[in-house]
Amino acid sequence: METSSSPYPLLDSLAAPQQIRHFTPEQLERLAAEVRAFIITSVSETGGHFSSNLGTVELTVALFHHFDFLQDRIVWDVGHQAYPHKILTGRKDRFPTLRQHHGLSGFLKRDESPYDHFGAGHASTSISAVLGMAKARDLQKQDHACIAVIGDGSMTAGMAFEGLNQAGYLEAKNFLVILNDNDMSINPNVGSLQGYLNQIMSGQYYQRWRDRIEHAIKAIPLEGLSKGVAKAAKWSEESFKRLMVPGLLFEDLGFRYIGPVNGHDVNATSKALAEAKEKMKEGPVLLHVQTKKGYGYEPAVQDPLKWHGVTAFDAEAGEIIKVQGDPSKPAPPSYTSVFGKALVELAKKDEKIVGITAAMLDGTGLNLFQKAFPDRCFDVGIAEQHAVTFAAGLAAQGMRPVCAIYSTFLQRGFDQVAHDVCIQDLPVTFALDRAGIVGADGPTHHGLYDLAYLRCLPNIILMAPKDENELRRMLMTALYCGHPAALRYPRGNGLGVALEEPITALPVGKGELLREGSDLLLCALGAMVDPALRIAETLAGEGVSCAVINARFVKPLDEALLHAWAGRCKAVVTLEEGCAPAGFGGAVAESLADAGLTRPLLRCAVADHLVHHGDPKRLLEEEGLGPKSLEGRIRTFFRDI
Amino acid sequence: METSSSPYPLLDSLAAPQQIRHFTPEQLERLAAEVRAFIITSVSETGGHFSSNLGTVELTVALFHHFDFLQDRIVWDVGHQAYPHKILTGRKDRFPTLRQHHGLSGFLKRDESPYDHFGAGHASTSISAVLGMAKARDLQKQDHACIAVIGDGSMTAGMAFEGLNQAGYLEAKNFLVILNDNDMSINPNVGSLQGYLNQIMSGQYYQRWRDRIEHAIKAIPLEGLSKGVAKAAKWSEESFKRLMVPGLLFEDLGFRYIGPVNGHDVNATSKALAEAKEKMKEGPVLLHVQTKKGYGYEPAVQDPLKWHGVTAFDAEAGEIIKVQGDPSKPAPPSYTSVFGKALVELAKKDEKIVGITAAMLDGTGLNLFQKAFPDRCFDVGIAEQHAVTFAAGLAAQGMRPVCAIYSTFLQRGFDQVAHDVCIQDLPVTFALDRAGIVGADGPTHHGLYDLAYLRCLPNIILMAPKDENELRRMLMTALYCGHPAALRYPRGNGLGVALEEPITALPVGKGELLREGSDLLLCALGAMVDPALRIAETLAGEGVSCAVINARFVKPLDEALLHAWAGRCKAVVTLEEGCAPAGFGGAVAESLADAGLTRPLLRCAVADHLVHHGDPKRLLEEEGLGPKSLEGRIRTFFRDI
Repeated sequence: METSSSPYPLLDSLAAPQQIRHFTPEQLERLAAEVRAFIITSVSETGGHFSSNLGTVELTVALFHHFDFLQDRIVWDVGHQAYPHKILTGRKDRFPTLRQHHGLSGFLKRDESPYDHFGAGHASTSISAVLGMAKARDLQKQDHACIAVIGDGSMTAGMAFEGLNQAGYLEAKNFLVILNDNDMSINPNVGSLQGYLNQIMSGQYYQRWRDRIEHAIKAIPLEGLSKGVAKAAKWSEESFKRLMVPGLLFEDLGFRYIGPVNGHDVNATSKALAEAKEKMKEGPVLLHVQTKKGYGYEPAVQDPLKWHGVTAFDAEAGEIIKVQGDPSKPAPPSYTSVFGKALVELAKKDEKIVGITAAMLDGTGLNLFQKAFPDRCFDVGIAEQHAVTFAAGLAAQGMRPVCAIYSTFLQRGFDQVAHDVCIQDLPVTFALDRAGIVGADGPTHHGLYDLAYLRCLPNIILMAPKDENELRRMLMTALYCGHPAALRYPRGNGLGVALEEPITALPVGKGELLREGSDLLLCALGAMVDPALRIAETLAGEGVSCAVINARFVKPLDEALLHAWAGRCKAVVTLEEGCAPAGFGGAVAESLADAGLTRPLLRCAVADHLVHHGDPKRLLEEEGLGPKSLEGRIRTFFRDI
Repeated sequence: METSSSPYPLLDSLAAPQQIRHFTPEQLERLAAEVRAFIITSVSETGGHFSSNLGTVELTVALFHHFDFLQDRIVWDVGHQAYPHKILTGRKDRFPTLRQHHGLSGFLKRDESPYDHFGAGHASTSISAVLGMAKARDLQKQDHACIAVIGDGSMTAGMAFEGLNQAGYLEAKNFLVILNDNDMSINPNVGSLQGYLNQIMSGQYYQRWRDRIEHAIKAIPLEGLSKGVAKAAKWSEESFKRLMVPGLLFEDLGFRYIGPVNGHDVNATSKALAEAKEKMKEGPVLLHVQTKKGYGYEPAVQDPLKWHGVTAFDAEAGEIIKVQGDPSKPAPPSYTSVFGKALVELAKKDEKIVGITAAMLDGTGLNLFQKAFPDRCFDVGIAEQHAVTFAAGLAAQGMRPVCAIYSTFLQRGFDQVAHDVCIQDLPVTFALDRAGIVGADGPTHHGLYDLAYLRCLPNIILMAPKDENELRRMLMTALYCGHPAALRYPRGNGLGVALEEPITALPVGKGELLREGSDLLLCALGAMVDPALRIAETLAGEGVSCAVINARFVKPLDEALLHAWAGRCKAVVTLEEGCAPAGFGGAVAESLADAGLTRPLLRCAVADHLVHHGDPKRLLEEEGLGPKSLEGRIRTFFRDI
C-alpha cells in the first residue's frame, strides 16, 4: 500500500474532517503529531508562516473533534495561524504550492474552500466578523456555533475590544472566542492587557488578590467579629481559586471565562471545548488557551520571531537556507534597513526624534532605532489608530515623531492621519514600508492604495524615493518640513547606489529631471524611476526621444517641471507601483487637465482589480509594470498617438 | 459699575483662569452656577451643543481649581463637552459667534487659544493624544500633568482601549484619564462596558461580588475550618466595599481607579481630583465621574438626545425655536429621512435587510428602521471599525447589511471597508450621510474625502444621487448589486421631487444625459446636478450650448456616455461637492486621458485646503461651488479656452 510508507498515515487516511468527530483521544494525539510533522516538512520546502502555525495544531484538531465547519462557522484571526485548518480540510496536497503564483494562499480565502468562512490578512477582525455571522444565523433561525480564534497580540487592537463589547452586550449565544495566548504578536507583546494575561498564567493574579483580601481584612474593625475572620484569609488555595476566576476582565465584559488551558494537550483542550459548548448555550464564552509559538520544533521555540515567516530551511539542522547570490556582488541593502540606519543617524543629532511602531519593530527596521534609543522608541502593539494619534500628541508638544508602519496597515489609522494629524497640520512623519506589490502575502498586504487615500488629505507632503539614497534624504525632508509627511518605499532591496554623507533634505515639491527628450515624457515615481530610465535608453536606440522625470513628490506635485516638459513632448507616460484609480497618474492627469495641457497620457499603474499572491516580478509583469511589458506598452502607445 | 447688573459677576471678574486656583469652596460653587447660566443663555441664542456641555460645568471648574492649563495639558474628547473650558479661558465674549463663519469653533482648536492643546471633533482620540503629550513631557524632562476627559460613549471605541492599554503598560506618571460617565453617547449608550459601568453606579457590582463570595464559601469543605469563615460572609458593607474596588477592570489594565464621584458636586469632584493628583505620582489614574447630560436645565435632562445639538431656543419656555418657512410651501424632506423611510419600505419586502449604525440612530435616520425592525437593527456604539466588519460577517452569511455612517466617520473604518468588504467582494451597502460641506461642525466633520478614499478600492460601486428620489433608487441598487456599494448624499433637504413608487433599481454604471449641447459638457455629481442644470439654462441664454450629464456613478464611471458627449463638446466641466485631489473630477480626468480624449477640463470641487466652520451656503460660495461663483467660473473658463 502506498500510504504504508507515508509519515502521515492517519492524516492521509482522512477523507473528510468530519471523521475527526469520532476520533479517540489517542487518535487525536496521533493526528496532531502528524499535522505538526507535515507542517515542519512542508514549510521547510516552500517557506511560509511557521511558528504561529505550530502553535495551533492541537487546538485545530480539538476544534474539528467538536465542530463540523461545514455548518459551524470559524474565523481564524490574521489567518496565518490556519495552516492546520487548511491541512485538515482537504488542502494538504496543495501545500507544495503555498504562497506561490496561482498556488495555495497563505491566509484563509473564501473562494478557496467551503471551510474558509472569512478571509483575513490584517489582525483583530475575527470577533467582529464572527459576531456578524452569529447574528445572521439568529435571524435565519439556524443554530450552529460561531467561533473566533484570536491571538493575544491581536487583542491589543481596539477593534477586538469593540467586538467583545458588543458580543457581551448582545449576550450572543453559541458564540465562542478562543484567545490563543502565546505572549507574542510578531514581536514580543506589549500593553497592560498582556500583563494581565501573564498574571493569570503565572498565578500572580491569585497572589495579588490574596494580598488585597489580607489587606482588607486587616482594615476591618475587630470588635464584634470572631477570630474566624482572620482564618478566612487562609482559605485553601483551591477554594480561593474557585472564588477568584482569573478572567474577571472578560466576565466584566459579559463573557463566561474558561481557562487557562494547555493548548498543546489536545485532550485537555478538547475537554475545555466540551465545557465551552455547554456554557455557550447561555451566552458568549471566552476560552483562554495557552500555546507556544513554534511548539514542537525547538529552534522556532527558541526564536519565534526569526521563525515567524521563513524561506525554505533545513529541518534537520534547524537552519534557514540562504539564497546564494554572486559572492563578488553583495546584494544591495534593503530599503527597510537603510531607513532604520538613517533614522538612527539623524536621531543622534536631534533628540526630538522619536520612533513609533505598531508591533513591527523588526519588519520596519525600527529595531535598530530601539537598540540605540530605547527611551525614544515606542512599540504600541497592534494598534495603528493609537499609534498615529499618539504620534500626533508627541508632535503637538514639539517632538519629531516617525510612525513606521507598512503601507497596508496605515489604512487602519486613516482617520487618525486625517483628523488628528493633517487637519491640525502636525509634523508627523509616516514611513510606509512595503508600498507596492509585496508578493507572497497577497491582496491583503499589497500596499497599493496609499497614494490615493493620502493625497486627498490637506497639508500632507507625500513622497516616494527612486533609490535608497533618496529614501534617506526624504526621511530628513519629512522630519524638518514642519508638516505631516509620508514617504512610501517598496519591500526588498535598493539599487546599490552610494549613500551620501551627511544626509541632506530635498527642496519640498521639487522633482528631478533625469533626462531631456522631445517625443515622450516619462514621469516616474519611486521604484519605477529606474525602469523608466532603462526604457528611455532602449527607445532612444529606436529613435524615440524620451524625457524622464523623477517626480519625488506626489504632493505637492512639481507642476512647473511637469508642465514644462509635457509642453515640450508629444505625449506623457506616468509610471507608479500603486493603484490606477486616484493614484500618482491621477494626480498628473488632474494637473495637466487643470493647466489645459491636453497631451495624450498613458498611466502605467496597477489596474483596478485584486492582485493575488505570488512572485512580485511575475505579478508586476502581469500588471504591465515589469520591464518587458512596460516597454511594449509604451512603444505601442507612442506608435498609436 | 457695569458688572453690577451682570448675571455673571464672578465669571466677569475673572481675568485669568489661574485665579480659580485660589477660590474657596463657595466661590467654586458660585462660578459653576454662573457658567451654567451663561451656557443656557448663550446657546439659547446661537444654538450649539448643549446637553453635553451642561454636564461638564462642575468638572471643568474643579479642574481649573487644581491645574494650570498653560503648563498642564488637557484634551477634551470630541470637544463638544468643552464650552465651560472655553468660557473660563477668555472666550466668553466670543460666544455670540459660536459655530458661525469666522466665529468661535464649536470644538477645541489649537490656533484658537493656548489653552486648547489638541483639537477633536471625532470621538475617542483623547487618551492617545494625551499619552503622546505625556511621553513628550517625560523626554523633555518636564513634570506637568497630562489629562484626558472622555465620555463613556467614546470609551466604546477600540481606540480608547488601545490608549488605556499602552498607558497602563508604560506606567505613565502624572497621567489622568477622567471618565465622564453620563450613560449616553448621542444616543443612549450600548455595549457591555456600559453595563459594567452601570453596575458600579447602581451598587449591583457589589451585589454580584457578594453573591460570588457567598457561593465560594459554601463550596469550601468545612472540616478543619472554624465557624468564623461563615461569618466572613457577613462583613460590614464598608469593609466589603473597601475590598471590592469597583474599577477592577481598569485596575487590571494598570490604572489606579478612583470613583465613582458625583460630577455635579464641584467640591466632591475637587476632592477627588486632589486624591488623583497624589496617586498620579505613582502611575496612571482613572477618575470615574458621574454626570448628567443637560444637568441644571430640566428639559435637557428629560430629553438629552433632543437637546444634544440645538438651534436657538426659548430658554424660559424650554422650547426649541422652529425656523418659520412659508407655510404654503412645506420644506422638502431631508435626505436622512428619505433614506430612513426607503430602507423601511425595502426591508418590508426583504427580511435579509439589516441596519447597522455606530451610535447615530437618529442622525442617520436609522431610528425609523429600528422602530419597524428592532431585531434587524444594530447600534454598535461608537465603533466604526467593528460596524463595518460586523456588516461583512452578516453579508458573508447571506444577509443584506446597510451600514449607515456619516461620510467623515467612515474614515474610521477605512481598512475594514478595504480588507474585509472590498477584497472579499462582500455585498455591504454603505449609506454615507453628511457628504460634502456640513457647516457649523467644521473641518473635522465635512465629508469631503469619501470619493477619493473609496474609489481606489477594488469591487466597490460608488454613487451619489441628484435628488431624494434617486437616493431611494440608489439604495435599492446598492442592496441588490451583489457587490460592496456606497451612496453618498448631503446634509439637509432634498429638492422636493416626487418619490416614485415602487422603488426601482438603476442600471449599474449608467449615467443620465439630462440635456444635449455642443459647447460645454457639464458632468455633475449628486447635489451639483441641479446647479449644473440651472447654469446650463443661464448660459443657453448667452448663446453657450451646454450638455449636462448626471453621472450617478463615480465607480464604475459611465465612460461611454462621458466620452460620447465630451467628444461632441469643446470642453468639459466637472462639478462635485468633495475634495479636488483624487475625487470625481479626478476620475473624469483619468478617464478622458486614458481614452486619449484631450479636451480642456475645469474641475469644480473643494480646493485642497481646510474648510472651516460656518454657513454651508457661504462656504460653498467661497469654494467657488455656490450658484454665483460657479456660473462665473464656468463662463470665464469657456471664454478662455
